[in-house]
Amino acid sequence: MATTTGHTIKAFDQDLNQLRANIAEMGGLAEAAIADSMRALVRRDPDAARIVIENDAKLDALEVEVERLAVQIIALRAPMADDLREVVAALKIAGLVERIGDYAKNIAKRVHAIEGSSELRPLSLLPEMARITGEMVHMVLDAFVQRDSKKAVEVCERDRAVDDFYNSLFRTLLTFMMEDPQNITAATHLLFVAKNLERIGDHATNVAEMVYFAATGTHLGERERGEDPVGLS
Amino acid sequence: MATTTGHTIKAFDQDLNQLRANIAEMGGLAEAAIADSMRALVRRDPDAARIVIENDAKLDALEVEVERLAVQIIALRAPMADDLREVVAALKIAGLVERIGDYAKNIAKRVHAIEGSSELRPLSLLPEMARITGEMVHMVLDAFVQRDSKKAVEVCERDRAVDDFYNSLFRTLLTFMMEDPQNITAATHLLFVAKNLERIGDHATNVAEMVYFAATGTHLGERERGEDPVGLS
Repeated sequence: MATTTGHTIKAFDQDLNQLRANIAEMGGLAEAAIADSMRALVRRDPDAARIVIENDAKLDALEVEVERLAVQIIALRAPMADDLREVVAALKIAGLVERIGDYAKNIAKRVHAIEGSSELRPLSLLPEMARITGEMVHMVLDAFVQRDSKKAVEVCERDRAVDDFYNSLFRTLLTFMMEDPQNITAATHLLFVAKNLERIGDHATNVAEMVYFAATGTHLGERERGEDPVGLS
Repeated sequence: MATTTGHTIKAFDQDLNQLRANIAEMGGLAEAAIADSMRALVRRDPDAARIVIENDAKLDALEVEVERLAVQIIALRAPMADDLREVVAALKIAGLVERIGDYAKNIAKRVHAIEGSSELRPLSLLPEMARITGEMVHMVLDAFVQRDSKKAVEVCERDRAVDDFYNSLFRTLLTFMMEDPQNITAATHLLFVAKNLERIGDHATNVAEMVYFAATGTHLGERERGEDPVGLS
């Protein structure tokens, strides 16, 4: 299959660059979706939320395209070792970034649900949490394109701040509910928004682990994946 | 790479059977984790919960093994068309089943948090919801092993019942919180348990879509994936 002629190597590199470009584009869309959904939530702007929800289809289409291209590369170019590892990582990373987009879409879907409810102070903490997760998505895609394992480790480390934010918001929102039952519906929706952001952080961390594996060929220690901070324990 | 000698074909089939066996084993572990975590929650049994949490490491190890084997198959056997599609599907399905295990683990982690709180009636609806999602996981892994696209479609259809359960529980738990602020902490944890089950249903549906694709080579229509029923809207 794989030959060492210049022609085949060049075609492989072109395919791989296309794969990387598609994933970088997915990362950009996911990052924008996080920021846009949070802006829609803070402004209680259902029109802006609808745009986030509609735009998610682009991420879904790009994931399908990455899968098609990755399978084509494996089938036609028969990549070995490092190259194969990168193609497999790309396939899985595309799935994770698509799900990050789903979480942003889910945040946008809550805008309608909290419309008309009185303002809750913890809402001001959520945009900061969204900013950090957006940065994690940006960083981890940079790390992927640059095959930078050190940057991947940094992304994993930032996830601790996201978990701390989540736990703090969990406690705060619960006290709001206890103070006034009228806050319960809105606070519950904001709790799920915080949870979505916490999951985005987890997924960015999972991507970071794959970038690390693709770049180094070894797994990133015994870190717990997909952890779900329980909040009050 | 791939030759048509009996030797190579036999080795490929053996590898593929091993891959299927590993994924079937993952499915069995995930199904057990769902049932065991729910039993631990209903009985408020922290020891049973701890066993679920500890057992999750087996699923993580199996996922790593599936990934290693899939990459080895692609690299050494260079499968084409249907076979390649199945290997790629196996790789992605292993990731989804591992996450289903994470959701069950997250349910088990809530056992400690609700310990000592007074009993809430909606708790009786959760085991039924867990039973349906466990069945979906069982069915979809059967569909994978049997390459049964019809059964995969059935799994997708069952997910609607899970979403209905979730929406009903969401409303019920919110009214419990409003009736008595003392219910808020426990009800919030149960809300996340319901959400974890709803996500398990989504993931089983995603597996079903991949089984359908692996079996037929076409995608399962325009179904929305990873949908997040918002509850009150």
